[in-house]
Amino acid sequence: MFHHVKDLQFNARVSRPDPYFANLLLEQFGGENGELAAAMQYFTQAFGAKMPHPDKYDMLMDIATEEFSHLEIVGATIQMLLKGVNGELKDAADQSEIMQVMDGKAAKENIIHQALSANPQFGIITGGGVTPRNSQGIPWCASYIHSNGDLTVDLRSNLASESRAKLVYEHLMKFTDDPYVHESLSFLMTREVAHYKMFEAALNDIQPNFPPGVLASDPRFTQQYFNLSNGATVRGPWNEGEMPDMGKEWNYIADPLAYVQDTQGITATDKTLDKELKQAQKLDKEMSEMRSTEVKNSEPEGVSEWSNYNAPKK
Amino acid sequence: MFHHVKDLQFNARVSRPDPYFANLLLEQFGGENGELAAAMQYFTQAFGAKMPHPDKYDMLMDIATEEFSHLEIVGATIQMLLKGVNGELKDAADQSEIMQVMDGKAAKENIIHQALSANPQFGIITGGGVTPRNSQGIPWCASYIHSNGDLTVDLRSNLASESRAKLVYEHLMKFTDDPYVHESLSFLMTREVAHYKMFEAALNDIQPNFPPGVLASDPRFTQQYFNLSNGATVRGPWNEGEMPDMGKEWNYIADPLAYVQDTQGITATDKTLDKELKQAQKLDKEMSEMRSTEVKNSEPEGVSEWSNYNAPKK
Amino acid sequence: MFHHVKDLQFNARVSRPDPYFANLLLEQFGGENGELAAAMQYFTQAFGAKMPHPDKYDMLMDIATEEFSHLEIVGATIQMLLKGVNGELKDAADQSEIMQVMDGKAAKENIIHQALSANPQFGIITGGGVTPRNSQGIPWCASYIHSNGDLTVDLRSNLASESRAKLVYEHLMKFTDDPYVHESLSFLMTREVAHYKMFEAALNDIQPNFPPGVLASDPRFTQQYFNLSNGATVRGPWNEGEMPDMGKEWNYIADPLAYVQDTQGITATDKTLDKELKQAQKLDKEMSEMRSTEVKNSEPEGVSEWSNYNAPKK
Amino acid sequence: MFHHVKDLQFNARVSRPDPYFANLLLEQFGGENGELAAAMQYFTQAFGAKMPHPDKYDMLMDIATEEFSHLEIVGATIQMLLKGVNGELKDAADQSEIMQVMDGKAAKENIIHQALSANPQFGIITGGGVTPRNSQGIPWCASYIHSNGDLTVDLRSNLASESRAKLVYEHLMKFTDDPYVHESLSFLMTREVAHYKMFEAALNDIQPNFPPGVLASDPRFTQQYFNLSNGATVRGPWNEGEMPDMGKEWNYIADPLAYVQDTQGITATDKTLDKELKQAQKLDKEMSEMRSTEVKNSEPEGVSEWSNYNAPKK
Amino acid sequence: MFHHVKDLQFNARVSRPDPYFANLLLEQFGGENGELAAAMQYFTQAFGAKMPHPDKYDMLMDIATEEFSHLEIVGATIQMLLKGVNGELKDAADQSEIMQVMDGKAAKENIIHQALSANPQFGIITGGGVTPRNSQGIPWCASYIHSNGDLTVDLRSNLASESRAKLVYEHLMKFTDDPYVHESLSFLMTREVAHYKMFEAALNDIQPNFPPGVLASDPRFTQQYFNLSNGATVRGPWNEGEMPDMGKEWNYIADPLAYVQDTQGITATDKTLDKELKQAQKLDKEMSEMRSTEVKNSEPEGVSEWSNYNAPKK
Amino acid sequence: MFHHVKDLQFNARVSRPDPYFANLLLEQFGGENGELAAAMQYFTQAFGAKMPHPDKYDMLMDIATEEFSHLEIVGATIQMLLKGVNGELKDAADQSEIMQVMDGKAAKENIIHQALSANPQFGIITGGGVTPRNSQGIPWCASYIHSNGDLTVDLRSNLASESRAKLVYEHLMKFTDDPYVHESLSFLMTREVAHYKMFEAALNDIQPNFPPGVLASDPRFTQQYFNLSNGATVRGPWNEGEMPDMGKEWNYIADPLAYVQDTQGITATDKTLDKELKQAQKLDKEMSEMRSTEVKNSEPEGVSEWSNYNAPKK
Repeated sequence: MFHHVKDLQFNARVSRPDPYFANLLLEQFGGENGELAAAMQYFTQAFGAKMPHPDKYDMLMDIATEEFSHLEIVGATIQMLLKGVNGELKDAADQSEIMQVMDGKAAKENIIHQALSANPQFGIITGGGVTPRNSQGIPWCASYIHSNGDLTVDLRSNLASESRAKLVYEHLMKFTDDPYVHESLSFLMTREVAHYKMFEAALNDIQPNFPPGVLASDPRFTQQYFNLSNGATVRGPWNEGEMPDMGKEWNYIADPLAYVQDTQGITATDKTLDKELKQAQKLDKEMSEMRSTEVKNSEPEGVSEWSNYNAPKK
Repeated sequence: MFHHVKDLQFNARVSRPDPYFANLLLEQFGGENGELAAAMQYFTQAFGAKMPHPDKYDMLMDIATEEFSHLEIVGATIQMLLKGVNGELKDAADQSEIMQVMDGKAAKENIIHQALSANPQFGIITGGGVTPRNSQGIPWCASYIHSNGDLTVDLRSNLASESRAKLVYEHLMKFTDDPYVHESLSFLMTREVAHYKMFEAALNDIQPNFPPGVLASDPRFTQQYFNLSNGATVRGPWNEGEMPDMGKEWNYIADPLAYVQDTQGITATDKTLDKELKQAQKLDKEMSEMRSTEVKNSEPEGVSEWSNYNAPKK
Repeated sequence: MFHHVKDLQFNARVSRPDPYFANLLLEQFGGENGELAAAMQYFTQAFGAKMPHPDKYDMLMDIATEEFSHLEIVGATIQMLLKGVNGELKDAADQSEIMQVMDGKAAKENIIHQALSANPQFGIITGGGVTPRNSQGIPWCASYIHSNGDLTVDLRSNLASESRAKLVYEHLMKFTDDPYVHESLSFLMTREVAHYKMFEAALNDIQPNFPPGVLASDPRFTQQYFNLSNGATVRGPWNEGEMPDMGKEWNYIADPLAYVQDTQGITATDKTLDKELKQAQKLDKEMSEMRSTEVKNSEPEGVSEWSNYNAPKK
Repeated sequence: MFHHVKDLQFNARVSRPDPYFANLLLEQFGGENGELAAAMQYFTQAFGAKMPHPDKYDMLMDIATEEFSHLEIVGATIQMLLKGVNGELKDAADQSEIMQVMDGKAAKENIIHQALSANPQFGIITGGGVTPRNSQGIPWCASYIHSNGDLTVDLRSNLASESRAKLVYEHLMKFTDDPYVHESLSFLMTREVAHYKMFEAALNDIQPNFPPGVLASDPRFTQQYFNLSNGATVRGPWNEGEMPDMGKEWNYIADPLAYVQDTQGITATDKTLDKELKQAQKLDKEMSEMRSTEVKNSEPEGVSEWSNYNAPKK
Repeated sequence: MFHHVKDLQFNARVSRPDPYFANLLLEQFGGENGELAAAMQYFTQAFGAKMPHPDKYDMLMDIATEEFSHLEIVGATIQMLLKGVNGELKDAADQSEIMQVMDGKAAKENIIHQALSANPQFGIITGGGVTPRNSQGIPWCASYIHSNGDLTVDLRSNLASESRAKLVYEHLMKFTDDPYVHESLSFLMTREVAHYKMFEAALNDIQPNFPPGVLASDPRFTQQYFNLSNGATVRGPWNEGEMPDMGKEWNYIADPLAYVQDTQGITATDKTLDKELKQAQKLDKEMSEMRSTEVKNSEPEGVSEWSNYNAPKK
Repeated sequence: MFHHVKDLQFNARVSRPDPYFANLLLEQFGGENGELAAAMQYFTQAFGAKMPHPDKYDMLMDIATEEFSHLEIVGATIQMLLKGVNGELKDAADQSEIMQVMDGKAAKENIIHQALSANPQFGIITGGGVTPRNSQGIPWCASYIHSNGDLTVDLRSNLASESRAKLVYEHLMKFTDDPYVHESLSFLMTREVAHYKMFEAALNDIQPNFPPGVLASDPRFTQQYFNLSNGATVRGPWNEGEMPDMGKEWNYIADPLAYVQDTQGITATDKTLDKELKQAQKLDKEMSEMRSTEVKNSEPEGVSEWSNYNAPKK
């Protein structure tokens, strides 16, 4: 159950209207890396996490709720950046001033002209208000979020999401010199870093957490690096020497076409790996049983009930 | 700023897994008439309402927050209806039972078979979890919501949204006989009716509220009903007698093609309407000024600040 | 069966090219509140209405056809506002003038420069023509329309659609001072008001029409107003006194968290409502039977045939 | 201006309900190759064609209007195939029969069970009605249509569209044995062939019509066939001998990588083509001037007016 | 299996940054008629063609691979046109210069200002890089491509796709005067013409290839032209005289409404066509058997294997 | 420049048709975590990486090309799983067998029935072929991919993408018992793990790489954990003790509402952090200069040229 408090989590202020920046800022309201995307990603992940991992559920809900609160900060800022637009639109019978503006005569000073140039829908659809779309008008879409029912995967998705969100705030900060707005962006950007660290700590808390999911990798196909893009080839730690934390060496396939031909489409592989393959399969079974049992045991027999209204509260 | 309480607003319970119904119920999680759509619609409308109409802002935020709380109820119910799927997926190394199921041998009893039939992504993408998509897998999209910066329009959008949401719950109730789920649906359906009444009361509270927006209708084009679909024509209160609450009569154009030809594309209209047209234009000006002033006066001079942390709290 | 007459319903004219306004006007061609959306909404609703409600079917088809005719007016206006662009594009071998324009040297006078600034696709995709997209290039999408197989719901969706369409025309009128275009917009805006009144009359003609759909609301959950957004709380007719036309009082829940806790997730409700609940259930059954019979009786036994070519025509 | 006649263009009939086929048929109502796509494609193309090519405008509007009429036939058929569903949904208080069906006990005979399996939204969103979505629930989208302001391109788009639409009807005919439905599909499929021939005749009527658009191809890059997919290579009329109607031979580049290297990225090409290149550029200028003049001359000076209400009618 | 060579197929060069043109050029990277669309269309068609038509499979894969190579050329050009943007964004702590630019003081000379105006996401999302979206920010979408499992249809889709792509390059060439970019565009435009000719030759190579698909048209519905758009009617080769290559005459229906009424919805058609109908049905059967056998015979019995690693290579 | 070799990278084989699994497998052809998404993500990232990081460019292109090769393996497998469908569709004149199947009489044995149930478009749109859509028919969309012009961000996006792709293959392996298909899936799943390790090694190779982007986090907002989701609260390494690799402690805000109130919306923060803030700002400037210079220096003066055809090849 949610509850709303009219105070913003951060004291968002705006020195003066700036519809142009309002439009850029829409990226973080209704864009692919924005606050709604973050909030909905962690919120949906939380449902699946609740039973087997009530501690991670608590964390995901805490952060999801903070992201909803950030969504509100971003929306409030956009609304304040559009001050004047709605009032001007309500003066519906009078178009004289607007038309002057459209001719460029009064453009510099006129907010409504800036609003229309930045985003036509500010003037004709949203009435100078906020909308869950990005800076080019694309409606927010649930394809932006990832929730896959496995914490070793979900938490990695979150590390990537926080990284992108941080970068977008960093970029946005270059495009406003309003010190109040700058401070709000600094707050929001930094919270993405803080969340990153929370998710990193939570992922470390699950062991083993690699590979993501349950199954081990197949030893026959794990070590090859295929040099499929020729020209000036470069070697680096991603294709020579040791694989990170794997106890294995990279196997650099310099001529992948010949390799594929020679191995009959990689089906005729090294027999010495057979033993390792069997071990991997054994590990897969044990891991499967462990993870499966963990989930199944956490689910109640019979009627499911989400909340326990008699539980002692904090 | 949002706050989350782990108790659900309504005590959602589920008697037994039912992936088939879980998929239907996705309509109200991530569908066009679902709880996320309602929550986001009222939430975005609230930003624009805050300044000129703090009372309506309060109402919109109250209801938006309740819709977020309903979203949680729906998600929790879907998650409980999918009990067993995630655990089964975690048993990744063992496919024997699944394949039996795929052949239909154990279909009746097997949850994972039902999950895959109802929604392939339950088995391969969401890991038996909830996702903001509808019953056919379409990702939730911000095109579902309407927020137009004018309360006489927004509140009417909300009356329509609540009507559709109510109907979808009504339909859903036919497809489950789980008494716990039925009770949750009855709660959710009824709340849509309650919200409808809140929005109706709020709309009545704004006077005048018709036509929506600011401008009056143009008297030259207001009264015609064009009979553009011939065959067996029917007359009814929508094309004969008095227009509702308008003090005018319908003007039934039986042969629109001839009418358009005769009136030079409706530009050669009745001269007797000229006086009425002038009155409408005068009214437009007054109304424009009133509504425009109302908004402009509510916006602060200088720096905008969303929250006042020193204000006395309720 | 449709028929097309080359005359426009309204005599759309344009004084001079204005690609900038052409782009804004796309909102009403291919936007969420535009004429295509209206036409397709009423057209699809008409199919379901035909059998039980031939009179409403007639009205829906009349208005749908008028909206298709308005779509043509909007398209013709956009095309005329883009005069010159296509001809310039056909001069494909010569880019000298364009490049001058791109440098801003001849910008003010040059239509093609305006066209590209307003909408890049005018210059490179549509060849200076009309396209069912909105002012930001989003392709029209059937998610914009609502057709739910129940007239008490569909007609309410239509009241909202007409309200939004009216407001968008009102906004658009502020951004052109071409008197011909202004007159066309005034016509189109006013027709939305006229349609509103038609739908209102049709909804009144169905009794009872509340709640939308068939089922009554559950008396246990109907009256509560949850004060979920705290801070400066406001009371108004939407949360105190009588609910509109319900014969009931609002029940203001000042502290929803405590209420939910106390009522075990609102499952432990007032026993005095049991009698009312039984009455509601009885009413539900009667209403269900009535509405179901009405539809079933209107459907033919055996072979279905949509048209009767031997019926006497008006 | 459109007009609607209640008679369908073809006498669509249905022997018995078949929700499963109703869902397949949605492809031609709201799918990528369906009637709405065809109607909107030709309708939008018509606007641009009107001025320079009033004869092609007439043809495009005739066919667009026929496609709207086909859309109605498809919609009517879907509605009749869903007979019974809406009536059953209206029986909202009674779920006993449905639940029996859900258990499979009465599945064979029960329409609503088929409706839900074929398309969950038939039962919970559309109320057993038609919707502009495809057989998998994807909302119709304007990305399906092409209108590029050049008839030599648009007419080729139409030949492709008609080909795909014809094929889809052919496929659909395999999945129904209702003779009435079969007859309607045969009508609709055949009309696509007829339209194909109309567009072909219209394209032939424009000379020259190749290459599409205005500019000639650059002789330096016209004749090469790059053998970029090696393995078992095949030669055929598309890479050896004469290019169709071009008076040129294919130039088969057996080893594209070496060729690109040798020609410095195809910039060091055969000097003997210089003369041909100059000729092409001269032709480009002439063609540009001709096509540009054609369009510009057809556009009126001063005020644009779409219709002439005083013109003599056919 | 794909292989990448770092050399571009064409030596793409750029004289100076031009973010404005970079945005226009996105149409051919991630737009509906762009290189990704072409590559994916031919690539997916190739899978179905492989078995019955290995020669056409070879051609489709050759051209698909060339289109991927063109995608790389377009992407490289966009990246070079955005030179400076990414470096400027990395100077994240310094916003002084940007803000000067935002005020228009240094606008003419400043790349980042142009980048933001042309496409806000260049500055805040892509970091001055390429993205599979169009010039208005719409993400590339698989609805752009057509692959229907029938070469007589697919090749016609390709003729249309190449025509549109050619036209877009023609349009783009008007908006840059960079001679290097112009040359790359001339190369890319011309290759579309060359591909057109390849597809034309391949279609001619299949006989019969009309109507597309397998079934003949129904003689009862083939010849009518419905004059559904009245006003000034025009006759032309698409509605009078002989149908192209059909050995039949157009049947011009001047008054379609009366015709439909008289023929009972076109069900009461000319009895003299019965013989022709029977012949068409006989032809359908023969053609069906032939085409069906062709495909079935090409598919292996038992285990399917895509590649034969022991086959002799070219 | 790309080159295609007809041999698949892995020897994909299929024991018998299985349209049901073909549909599930579409997730990895045209789904959000599939091979096209991976290929396009790394391909677009490569453009931006080329100049400052030619070694990472080489790696990204190698892996992108491998993903295109995997896309081909997945497509080939789907095509083989649909063996028989296209041939059956070509038998267009004969529907007898299909109808038998539709009645369920021959369902078990019949491929086309399975194809239609699994995915209606297999039967009516794709002709039994592959299509870039997911298992529920959603067209592939560029919103799935992330390319942000900063390697510390892009590589983290890739770690998440590979994690999700690995999990989806793991899930898919549960739903087929065809040993050949199983082997292909094991190959594809394992390659995702190998790519994960490559990206991890590449990210480690960039120092410093945290926070992602350029700017340091703001010390005033870095350490707080907001306990926004109350009920049973849990403490763990994500909200108590040391933050991972940050040299700082978590600051657990048990009552965020009071905290926000007390700190005036977190603007009145600890003065002791001022020194740290100044240091962060100094670091920001240095880092900005370093990263900006790195990019700018790598870009050529004057004309940009992507390839150097005279460079010595590997």
